[in-house]
Amino acid sequence: MNQDELKRVAAERSVEFVQDHTIVGLGTGSTVMHMVRALAKRVKDENLDIIGVATSSRTRKQAEELGITMKGIDEVDHVDLTIDGADEVDKNFQGIKGGGAAHAFEKIVATSSTHNLWIVDESKLVDRIGGFPLPLEVIPYGSTKVFQRLENEDLHPKFRKDDQGQNIITHSGNYIIDLHLGLINHPHLLANWLSEQVGILEHGLFLDTVDTIVVGTAEGPKVLYSHSI
Amino acid sequence: MNQDELKRVAAERSVEFVQDHTIVGLGTGSTVMHMVRALAKRVKDENLDIIGVATSSRTRKQAEELGITMKGIDEVDHVDLTIDGADEVDKNFQGIKGGGAAHAFEKIVATSSTHNLWIVDESKLVDRIGGFPLPLEVIPYGSTKVFQRLENEDLHPKFRKDDQGQNIITHSGNYIIDLHLGLINHPHLLANWLSEQVGILEHGLFLDTVDTIVVGTAEGPKVLYSHSI
Repeated sequence: MNQDELKRVAAERSVEFVQDHTIVGLGTGSTVMHMVRALAKRVKDENLDIIGVATSSRTRKQAEELGITMKGIDEVDHVDLTIDGADEVDKNFQGIKGGGAAHAFEKIVATSSTHNLWIVDESKLVDRIGGFPLPLEVIPYGSTKVFQRLENEDLHPKFRKDDQGQNIITHSGNYIIDLHLGLINHPHLLANWLSEQVGILEHGLFLDTVDTIVVGTAEGPKVLYSHSI
Repeated sequence: MNQDELKRVAAERSVEFVQDHTIVGLGTGSTVMHMVRALAKRVKDENLDIIGVATSSRTRKQAEELGITMKGIDEVDHVDLTIDGADEVDKNFQGIKGGGAAHAFEKIVATSSTHNLWIVDESKLVDRIGGFPLPLEVIPYGSTKVFQRLENEDLHPKFRKDDQGQNIITHSGNYIIDLHLGLINHPHLLANWLSEQVGILEHGLFLDTVDTIVVGTAEGPKVLYSHSI
C-alpha cells in the first residue's frame, strides 16, 4: 500500500469511533477527506443520526455533498468527538498541526470537543516534536515586529509564502509564520510563551488535546490510546 | 475646566516628552486627538524631525493632515515613545484599554516601544482596575464557545453591540467581548489565563507597559513616574 492507501485504511478505521446521536467535529486535509467519505458511507448504510461540525469550508462542502447534516461551531453547544489529521505527534500525544494553515479553527473545534482522535501515518509519530515547522497565525499589522521578537528568541521564524513569493493569507485574513525548530524540548513552556506574545492569534502546538490516535501502518491501522487523559 | 479641557491640557503637557529625532507611537481616541494637535504644533514651531506611527487609520489621517511624517509599524524597526490614552489605571501602573476596540493594534505598538506614556483624567486613576469592562478581541468563528467558557469562569462576558444590536466588528474583522468584573484582584493571573484561551486575539489588560502617566487635574496636569520599571 502507498501512503495514501495507508491513510485511507486508517481513516476508515477512525470512523468506527463515531457513535449514533452525536456531534462530530471534522478536521481539514487529505486524510480527513478519506475520513469524511467513510463517515458518509456509515451514515447512509446505518442510517446514523449525527451532526457534523467542519473546521473549514472545504470540509463542510465535501460533507454536505455526501449527505452529512452539518452545523456551524457556533450553532452547537458541544462536540462529542473530533476527528482530524496531524502533522507530527509524540509518544505523550503532544502534537503539531497547521501545515494546512487551518490550525486556529481546528483548535477552536478541538478544545470544544469531549474527545479528539487523530489519524496519522507512521512517519508522523516521533520521539519529540519540532521536526515539522511549527505554524503561528499572526495578524498582518505589526507582523514584522512579531517576526523580530521570534528571531531574537532564536526560534527560526519564516513567513510562509505562496508560489508568487507573497505571504499566504489565512481564512481570517492573517499571515502564517513557521518556526523551524528541529526539536521542541519543552512544548508547554513554548506554548505559554507563544500565547502571551501580542499579535499571534494561535500557534500550532496541540498539547493535552488528543486521546486516541489511529496510525496507518503496512500491517493495517493501529489504535493508540492516551492513558494520561 | 470641563473634562475635555483637562484632557487637552494634559495632552499638551504629554508632548513635552517627545524628543527630536525619535519615532513616536500615536494611540487612538479623543485624548489622543488633542495630543496629535499639540504634537503637530511642536513639530511645526520647533521644526522637529520625528516620525509618527499610528495605531489606527483615524489617528494616521489626522496626523498626516497636520503635517506629521507617518510610517506603518512594519516600516520602522522600533518606537521610542508611544503616547496613548487609557480607560483605567491603578497605582501600580497596571491598566485597561480597549474602550475604542483598538487595543490589539495599540498593544502591538506599545510592546514595540521603549517608553509608554498615558494621558488620563483623574477619574481613571483607581485603586484596583476592573470597574471598566475588560475588552477581549475574539475571532467570530467559535466566539459563542469562547463566550461559554468565559461564563463558566464567572467572568461576566457581554458581546459589545452597535446601535442596531449587532456585534461590533474590529478593524481585523473580529468581535469584542467585554468582561464586567467590577474588580480584578490578580491581573497577571487573569492575563495569563486569557492569553491561553483559544479564539481570543488580545485582551485589554496592559500590564507592566506604561512608565509615565500625565493626569489631567483641576490644578493642572500632574506627571506620575513608575519606579518599578
